[in-house]
Amino acid sequence: MIIVMKHTATPEDIQVAMGAIENAGLSAHISKGSEVTILGVIGDKSRLSSDCLCSLNGVDKIVPITETYKLANLKFHPEPTIVKLNNCEIGGKKLIVMAGPCAIESESQLLESAEAAKNGGAKVLRGGAYKPRTSPYAFQGLEEEGLKYMKTAREKTGLSVICEVTSINAVQTAVNYVDILQIGARNMQNFELLKAVGKTNLPVLLKRGLSATIDEWLNAAEYIMSEGNPNVILCERGIRTFETATRNTLDISAIPVIKAKSHLPIIVDPSHASGKRAYISSLSKAAIAAGADGLIIEVHPNPKVALSDGPQSLDPHDFSVLMDELKPIATAVGREL
Amino acid sequence: MIIVMKHTATPEDIQVAMGAIENAGLSAHISKGSEVTILGVIGDKSRLSSDCLCSLNGVDKIVPITETYKLANLKFHPEPTIVKLNNCEIGGKKLIVMAGPCAIESESQLLESAEAAKNGGAKVLRGGAYKPRTSPYAFQGLEEEGLKYMKTAREKTGLSVICEVTSINAVQTAVNYVDILQIGARNMQNFELLKAVGKTNLPVLLKRGLSATIDEWLNAAEYIMSEGNPNVILCERGIRTFETATRNTLDISAIPVIKAKSHLPIIVDPSHASGKRAYISSLSKAAIAAGADGLIIEVHPNPKVALSDGPQSLDPHDFSVLMDELKPIATAVGREL
Amino acid sequence: MIIVMKHTATPEDIQVAMGAIENAGLSAHISKGSEVTILGVIGDKSRLSSDCLCSLNGVDKIVPITETYKLANLKFHPEPTIVKLNNCEIGGKKLIVMAGPCAIESESQLLESAEAAKNGGAKVLRGGAYKPRTSPYAFQGLEEEGLKYMKTAREKTGLSVICEVTSINAVQTAVNYVDILQIGARNMQNFELLKAVGKTNLPVLLKRGLSATIDEWLNAAEYIMSEGNPNVILCERGIRTFETATRNTLDISAIPVIKAKSHLPIIVDPSHASGKRAYISSLSKAAIAAGADGLIIEVHPNPKVALSDGPQSLDPHDFSVLMDELKPIATAVGREL
Amino acid sequence: MIIVMKHTATPEDIQVAMGAIENAGLSAHISKGSEVTILGVIGDKSRLSSDCLCSLNGVDKIVPITETYKLANLKFHPEPTIVKLNNCEIGGKKLIVMAGPCAIESESQLLESAEAAKNGGAKVLRGGAYKPRTSPYAFQGLEEEGLKYMKTAREKTGLSVICEVTSINAVQTAVNYVDILQIGARNMQNFELLKAVGKTNLPVLLKRGLSATIDEWLNAAEYIMSEGNPNVILCERGIRTFETATRNTLDISAIPVIKAKSHLPIIVDPSHASGKRAYISSLSKAAIAAGADGLIIEVHPNPKVALSDGPQSLDPHDFSVLMDELKPIATAVGREL
Repeated sequence: MIIVMKHTATPEDIQVAMGAIENAGLSAHISKGSEVTILGVIGDKSRLSSDCLCSLNGVDKIVPITETYKLANLKFHPEPTIVKLNNCEIGGKKLIVMAGPCAIESESQLLESAEAAKNGGAKVLRGGAYKPRTSPYAFQGLEEEGLKYMKTAREKTGLSVICEVTSINAVQTAVNYVDILQIGARNMQNFELLKAVGKTNLPVLLKRGLSATIDEWLNAAEYIMSEGNPNVILCERGIRTFETATRNTLDISAIPVIKAKSHLPIIVDPSHASGKRAYISSLSKAAIAAGADGLIIEVHPNPKVALSDGPQSLDPHDFSVLMDELKPIATAVGREL
Repeated sequence: MIIVMKHTATPEDIQVAMGAIENAGLSAHISKGSEVTILGVIGDKSRLSSDCLCSLNGVDKIVPITETYKLANLKFHPEPTIVKLNNCEIGGKKLIVMAGPCAIESESQLLESAEAAKNGGAKVLRGGAYKPRTSPYAFQGLEEEGLKYMKTAREKTGLSVICEVTSINAVQTAVNYVDILQIGARNMQNFELLKAVGKTNLPVLLKRGLSATIDEWLNAAEYIMSEGNPNVILCERGIRTFETATRNTLDISAIPVIKAKSHLPIIVDPSHASGKRAYISSLSKAAIAAGADGLIIEVHPNPKVALSDGPQSLDPHDFSVLMDELKPIATAVGREL
Repeated sequence: MIIVMKHTATPEDIQVAMGAIENAGLSAHISKGSEVTILGVIGDKSRLSSDCLCSLNGVDKIVPITETYKLANLKFHPEPTIVKLNNCEIGGKKLIVMAGPCAIESESQLLESAEAAKNGGAKVLRGGAYKPRTSPYAFQGLEEEGLKYMKTAREKTGLSVICEVTSINAVQTAVNYVDILQIGARNMQNFELLKAVGKTNLPVLLKRGLSATIDEWLNAAEYIMSEGNPNVILCERGIRTFETATRNTLDISAIPVIKAKSHLPIIVDPSHASGKRAYISSLSKAAIAAGADGLIIEVHPNPKVALSDGPQSLDPHDFSVLMDELKPIATAVGREL
Repeated sequence: MIIVMKHTATPEDIQVAMGAIENAGLSAHISKGSEVTILGVIGDKSRLSSDCLCSLNGVDKIVPITETYKLANLKFHPEPTIVKLNNCEIGGKKLIVMAGPCAIESESQLLESAEAAKNGGAKVLRGGAYKPRTSPYAFQGLEEEGLKYMKTAREKTGLSVICEVTSINAVQTAVNYVDILQIGARNMQNFELLKAVGKTNLPVLLKRGLSATIDEWLNAAEYIMSEGNPNVILCERGIRTFETATRNTLDISAIPVIKAKSHLPIIVDPSHASGKRAYISSLSKAAIAAGADGLIIEVHPNPKVALSDGPQSLDPHDFSVLMDELKPIATAVGREL
């Protein structure tokens, strides 16, 4: 942590700031520059409130130097995390594709989707039982009934299954039915929910918040991990920007940035990122080429009658074509699909 | 709802789209333009999934025309909502100021803050017992113990009290101690939490999400109201943009926009919006001048030792000075403070 | 400037970095922290390319501490700049309002606008002769003919006049007709144009770029000032964000931030910020309350037939009403209108 | 164009709006909905100012349906544009890589860079002679001297050469030395400059503005094309968002969006998008996989001593390695490198 003093700071101001640092059991180097003085603080900064220091007379700003996340940090855990499921691993050489409908609508719709997912080469079936919707009047999901269909689909196909959970109650129910719990973008900083999934022993897919920085995202992962659950999979799904040609802006750079900062696997959701079926193929290829560990794609047996997010779902044929097109790209970057 | 067909749409495509509209019990006007054809859909659109229509052949895009929120909509409720508390009203001619520490740290800190708030002219005491923090290692709040201090402060000062709730459990506890429940920015689309506060009979302060559009914000209010709770107070607290000179960017325009779209009262949080004490006075004045119904300001008896958000807290003296400066501005816009 | 070394940096990496600093005639303090080492560089950093340092082995990042703008910086010029015009001053106790049509359409339209501006209490007449338009097929302005009408309007009313210039040729023409040159948002980093207006002896109104940080904006002012022209007036006109309820998002915080960083006067353009007539009154009041030195408002004798930006123009009556409403707010913040 | 009337609009308001449409020689369909009435306007909308309509009583909003750009629009020009240079084509099956230093520093530095570019497989040499820099005190480029070195490099290597132009004067000089003119991000809406390059017969590389929508970008291309120059190459170089882990956020989705809306070729600049050498490889692969027609990459013989943008430049060896890695990805998407 670096404390930058104002150019108007007096020697007394500097002494008071040094005292505050030392009172917290830390030490600091003083650098007197031509315009301003800076203090480089050394030691365990969790003992110190940067907010308090900021209120001292003569302090201009605090520049944090080290990250607040530790368990999710590549520095302290240089080996990549590989999340193990019954039928596959996430984060290894083999890329993983999760596929299925945005919302679970009926048992037959889900089973058809599961077949399409499996036939295309997916290893994980996705499907929403609890749907966070902007308007209270939109379809909200089948809840536990949907989870039961998920379990049936798993038994019939051997696929692993993943569902979003939107409350602590949903977590308690979902652990009985699914293999991976998903935290949606809108709940990325619902810290009570993060702690709750951190207390389960299921892997967690953590979607990036609509306007979350990568640093905040890794801190959200830290909430889960600090409860004892190391199996976090990150999912980039587009951020909110001024551009409206796509529903969100896929932050493709997040892939190499995460690989440089964390050991956690990262997958990409091209369906929510773009909001348009026509762009999914292009974004999926880009994600694999950029180094993602997998994809989560919306596939629906009949997108035109989907109750939710139809326009961004692929039909089984298009999904199968896409999977074939992805294979040579995976090979080109030293991976397998 | 308007359906814009692609310029390549065939007459059959248009017929299929018209059929889908009619199957849903709605009707549509066809407008054939020089380049494209558009369909204006008439009737109750909740019967129709715009997502499905979007998947039909030849459909280019759907343009929504009417808002999805009804209870929060000025169109259907032209009188302004006035939220009644024991000692004051929010949304009437008189402006309301809420003041107090970011986090409740101890009984004495809270009581001192309450005195400062009251002496300055605040009607509501704010203070966080449950703190949503980016890092799991930062101070997380005193929880129920903090709520007890709130109740004591209310009894001693006659102020109404408000606390943020971050989980359904916290709602169930907080209703026993406070007068207003607060939903924080990070939980604005935690729909389970919105429904839970909608089931209480306490007024709810709903902060705008970091990257929520005004439309999404009013839909979040609709979640609360559709559970039977009409007493929602909106709070603009800054949005996330590229600018880093302030912690967030106060969207001052949200005030007239909300006044044009909704009957709900709106207050402004200049402390979180700016993140810097030096800018609070200027933003508070701007908010009152723009037509806000009140302010929520961080006041701490000793900001330099605050456990949370010290740099954005006013001390009792500065708060009192600010309140005096706000009075002539309130008068200038036909309000009272 | 602070150089933060990677946690993997070797003692040799640190030595090489220190060498680079010393070769540039500067010195540095070394702070060895528990995780990383930082180097605080002392001296005239213009001798050093932070980009080069960043490429050295073991360097993690460079944190700039001091601003690159000097002439625009409050630190080195603590007295506020007051820009003097024939009939008024900008930046003093008295607030200045600039008013007039977005585009100059004809002599009579401009003269009518000038009368409305003057009657309402404006001191400066605005009007566009060179219009930067998103589409090449939209109305582009009357160019020099429009400037001539401006000069006529000045002679008839005694108002000062301001016009946007969009090229070096336009600067050379406009200096013969107007009192203030305006640089539009899209040209804020058209550095050749900034240098050209810096070489004139006319005051320059510098609008903030659509996505310019405050720091970049002050650096743009520095371009003008470093050519010898100290009379720069800043104009906040809204930034681009994800919100679409207004054309842009007025960054009201820019007012206190600029006042904390620079001695230059700052005015606000509520017309372009909001893009909607209905919000102009509210934003104008907020700007004055926040401490702006004035406003620039679109006024058109008949907004319904305006060739450009009609929906954000006030008619003469509404302008006059607004000016009356602003007076008590000006008084409330110790200013005059 | 669709005109949405307010729910409070009277029959007279609708009649007046219809009259305005008909006066402009256009016609309209009326759709009376359950809540609001909409008017679908038919005919050549350039005859009508949407701004004026918006000012009419009872008009809520105008929804544009057709794009304002025509020459750049895929609808009216379904064949992809292929830009021909002496030694290559841009927009065909073969991908094109442009490489070279950010700034031209000396003849030897440029010639070394040109060799590195050619050896790696680049077809075009990039290099800045006119540098737009945020601060007036940063290195501004060698100007015409730099252009001369460019010409020498072209003669020695057979590469085509590209330079950014920042003023009309620079255009007039550069046409004597280079094969492609580049418009930088900061000048994307410097319409005078766009017109000037539109009057030359050289291909133009048009970088996307920092916060330009894709629609604005295509309108900027339209400015160039409407002057008679059809050879525009688009360049996505990252947009400004809240994320600070990368200098800008590469909008990878812009590639399929442009391919869906325009016939112009699009290349990607991973160097400026990321600002960090470590991420260039990942972003380059993503761009090719997503369907870009090429790349523009900063290559410097010795990045550590670069006067500008060193940290985002590759050295010759890394460039050569990257080019080899890109080949199988190009093949995987049916292209050649």
